[in-house]
Amino acid sequence: MTIRLGDNQYGKAETHVVRITKATDTHEIKDLNVSVALAGDFADTHLKGDNTKVVPTDTQKNTVFAFANEPIGEIEDFALKLARHFVNDFESVGRARVTIEEFPWVRINVASKGAANAFMRKGTEKRLAMVTCMRHSEWVVSGLADLVVLKSAGSEFRGFPRDRYTTLEETSDRILATSLMARWRYTSAAVDWAESYSEGRRMILETFANHHSLALQQTLYAMGEAVLEARREVCEIRLSMPNKHHFQVDLSPFGLKNENEVFHAADRPYGLIEGTVLRDDAPDGALAW
Amino acid sequence: MTIRLGDNQYGKAETHVVRITKATDTHEIKDLNVSVALAGDFADTHLKGDNTKVVPTDTQKNTVFAFANEPIGEIEDFALKLARHFVNDFESVGRARVTIEEFPWVRINVASKGAANAFMRKGTEKRLAMVTCMRHSEWVVSGLADLVVLKSAGSEFRGFPRDRYTTLEETSDRILATSLMARWRYTSAAVDWAESYSEGRRMILETFANHHSLALQQTLYAMGEAVLEARREVCEIRLSMPNKHHFQVDLSPFGLKNENEVFHAADRPYGLIEGTVLRDDAPDGALAW
Amino acid sequence: MTIRLGDNQYGKAETHVVRITKATDTHEIKDLNVSVALAGDFADTHLKGDNTKVVPTDTQKNTVFAFANEPIGEIEDFALKLARHFVNDFESVGRARVTIEEFPWVRINVASKGAANAFMRKGTEKRLAMVTCMRHSEWVVSGLADLVVLKSAGSEFRGFPRDRYTTLEETSDRILATSLMARWRYTSAAVDWAESYSEGRRMILETFANHHSLALQQTLYAMGEAVLEARREVCEIRLSMPNKHHFQVDLSPFGLKNENEVFHAADRPYGLIEGTVLRDDAPDGALAW
Amino acid sequence: MTIRLGDNQYGKAETHVVRITKATDTHEIKDLNVSVALAGDFADTHLKGDNTKVVPTDTQKNTVFAFANEPIGEIEDFALKLARHFVNDFESVGRARVTIEEFPWVRINVASKGAANAFMRKGTEKRLAMVTCMRHSEWVVSGLADLVVLKSAGSEFRGFPRDRYTTLEETSDRILATSLMARWRYTSAAVDWAESYSEGRRMILETFANHHSLALQQTLYAMGEAVLEARREVCEIRLSMPNKHHFQVDLSPFGLKNENEVFHAADRPYGLIEGTVLRDDAPDGALAW
Repeated sequence: MTIRLGDNQYGKAETHVVRITKATDTHEIKDLNVSVALAGDFADTHLKGDNTKVVPTDTQKNTVFAFANEPIGEIEDFALKLARHFVNDFESVGRARVTIEEFPWVRINVASKGAANAFMRKGTEKRLAMVTCMRHSEWVVSGLADLVVLKSAGSEFRGFPRDRYTTLEETSDRILATSLMARWRYTSAAVDWAESYSEGRRMILETFANHHSLALQQTLYAMGEAVLEARREVCEIRLSMPNKHHFQVDLSPFGLKNENEVFHAADRPYGLIEGTVLRDDAPDGALAW
Repeated sequence: MTIRLGDNQYGKAETHVVRITKATDTHEIKDLNVSVALAGDFADTHLKGDNTKVVPTDTQKNTVFAFANEPIGEIEDFALKLARHFVNDFESVGRARVTIEEFPWVRINVASKGAANAFMRKGTEKRLAMVTCMRHSEWVVSGLADLVVLKSAGSEFRGFPRDRYTTLEETSDRILATSLMARWRYTSAAVDWAESYSEGRRMILETFANHHSLALQQTLYAMGEAVLEARREVCEIRLSMPNKHHFQVDLSPFGLKNENEVFHAADRPYGLIEGTVLRDDAPDGALAW
Repeated sequence: MTIRLGDNQYGKAETHVVRITKATDTHEIKDLNVSVALAGDFADTHLKGDNTKVVPTDTQKNTVFAFANEPIGEIEDFALKLARHFVNDFESVGRARVTIEEFPWVRINVASKGAANAFMRKGTEKRLAMVTCMRHSEWVVSGLADLVVLKSAGSEFRGFPRDRYTTLEETSDRILATSLMARWRYTSAAVDWAESYSEGRRMILETFANHHSLALQQTLYAMGEAVLEARREVCEIRLSMPNKHHFQVDLSPFGLKNENEVFHAADRPYGLIEGTVLRDDAPDGALAW
Repeated sequence: MTIRLGDNQYGKAETHVVRITKATDTHEIKDLNVSVALAGDFADTHLKGDNTKVVPTDTQKNTVFAFANEPIGEIEDFALKLARHFVNDFESVGRARVTIEEFPWVRINVASKGAANAFMRKGTEKRLAMVTCMRHSEWVVSGLADLVVLKSAGSEFRGFPRDRYTTLEETSDRILATSLMARWRYTSAAVDWAESYSEGRRMILETFANHHSLALQQTLYAMGEAVLEARREVCEIRLSMPNKHHFQVDLSPFGLKNENEVFHAADRPYGLIEGTVLRDDAPDGALAW
């Protein structure tokens, strides 16, 4: 019997960098949480404690800050720059993955005009980028997380099988609520990231709003399909949607009729629906995720 | 030596009620987290386990849901209705406090028009109301929490004393960032709550943006003063502002010059600045908080 | 109408200091989260941005680390040392409050013997100290938080009033579970802190286990009374106990009988029971909390 | 171009069941957080909203509670029972994964003896089981999470490469701290789960304590190897170890010498080290995770 090292990676997670651009009196802000993970020729550190090839995670953090001294641009570009650096400049690094969460800010309005240098956080939502670079290939994934949405009409759940343990009633009018995570993969790195992001997000939101839902799965698929139909540069999209249950409260013990208007928003348990929608001809992306 | 019961209260915390109003095809949503706390003649349950006067917390929860079957209106009104009910309908209850967090939602845009029945969470910010009712008096407090704001210019911190343990450098250009909690007390319950809230919030944000800050304390006072000057119905305001430190990253080891543009956003420790601004003639409000 | 500054305080919150004592080959560990809050003559910083009297929160942090270079001892002593320093060494500081959370660690067992230099976190529970110093008086509060306990027998809830909104059934056998916070105040600072803490904690736990509970309020009072009866140095104790509801699951739809053994542990809403137990002759402690 | 459905799964996450066994006057407690995820023939619900084959997540939750009415035993057995049920009783289900977190409790001591019916939560640590069943194969993974450990001696980090962005100093005496997640896969389901868990855990802790660490990666490998050497039934182990940085505080500005005893425990960023150790002859386990 031989014991051996299998898959492994390491890196610096959650370097929180805020980059203010002061090129003009009207400042710009970028607020990023950057995580780096490296894989490669790291057997010696595991087996012998030999760190000759181990780029310290402290160096990775420094690199993130140093690179942020140049204009950051879109997070996909910043992630590409970082990931390519680690793969190209260190022989031991066979694969670098850089994951970025971007927290959105908006200008504070003063007398109905956006302030030059004062901002407020906008929403719970984060924009995501995940870039994976190897010596001769690279993958870019964009997306969003923590986008909390709710439909008060146009959602049913009926026709499901019943067994000994089924007590759920069929419904043709329920609340559908979720905290969306959507991540989509591109076929190349020659993309207008800003447009892809805002249009992908728009397709997802409009589909959520317009789609008459017979199942959360159906809504998930419809959203994924809408993105793929609208954006040729996207070949695959993965969605994760917790079903945040809103239970109609039974008010009949109090002599009241709840016209499907009063709900208890429960925390746990919750449904969790996960799915992938992709093109038939999508290039292999197993290493992108 | 005698041992006795001192201050005490009990109640149901965090009943999460979502109220959809379906009066027309265009739905309205209210998303509230409601906490009830009752004080009064409850010595017997503490000393003897006699629950004759103890309104069960389960009943409190039911009451929240039942009252939500009527249109909710502004959260201050909903809290008043609930708090008055507990004080008026139960002899044992001498004081009822109802605290509400409201989570804001906006309509999802479809073809640039707000959807009738589809919503998304707006911001990390919550609107707050806290109502305290006793037999012959009541207090209303409104406010907001988790409003994250940042100034990239117009903030200094200089002229502080130095002792053996001081290493901080003076700065005339730092990032000022905080997660605001502001709560203000009214002199009466005859107030246009919606207007007071939105105008109070506006004064706070505009002052934060416009104010040249020599200290976070000064900014806190200026925001409180602005609300009191603009809103005659408000007699006291309390603000709590963590100083979310953004440290300029030293890039000189890498041969780079950080022109005060690249910052590390630290988690802990953080400064915590708390203060009250009030009118000289504010009626006593000790029991309101 | 005059607007003025009311109560205010500021300080550095959550300085997380880990102190290893290496006096012998068998190390000792102290893991503390220290928060400082100062009040006093700080009107000028609020009104004019004049920081002449403002001990920077950064200095407060440095002071915590510097003082930790000496042996820390019990957290009450460390908090006293820090709070006295701020009050005594800075004329502008009228009141200093130092709050410490201590995270407990135990030695990892190797061949059934505690390791000299390897530790693991013990429990979710924290030990607390809160010291408030003014020019001529000081108060010490000790306690614990996040001590999660559960009784599977010996808990009833019956005899409560019923109104239109009451649906709760009476029960003579329910699960009682809570996450305890208990904080007790001393009459002096000449106390064996370690013994008071461990004995106070023991009285609370034993009372929770032994007490036949007719109401969570009764259990709260019994625990407080037990501490006061056993510890002469304690004059007041405050307890906060969320009622972490465990609902018996109705298995009858599945043809099963739940013999009060299967429960759903709910998150929200929860009951929240808060109370104070004190000696009749307790000295005034309003400023201690 | 054709768009199609790719990998997908759905289920009920985080059903929190507490099971008290009252067979004797001395009760036993099991506290489990159970998540179910099903994959299989679910294209119709995605594409057409046809739910004929969709076992409702509500039914999955009911099933967890119903099965908990029988004695639960070890969590691996409980997960196997549930996962086999979903695969065997529903033709549409091709793969069922049941993941369980178990929260450990200990009896409260009363007069140095464990109480019959009163418990306290023990540690932040969770025990884990993850079972994946398909029609003709199944995989069992056990493990633990959130086990927070720290070494105050026996940890170095030296010999790493230096580039333009490296500022880290070499150290032969640092604090090593992590919050361990370890999960190991078995070659069969005929295992004494309780013994494998407690022995696996013991090997991990003893190795952490005893191992002289030249890199966190080396410690990770040593722990994995120790488990594989001691437990023949285990064929693969995956470990995830955030490097919870403890920075030595520079006290020299205060005229003090920090003898490597005072540390600042930082939150973010943190190193993240992940690795797999396995036997050469481990059967394929790609679907187990």
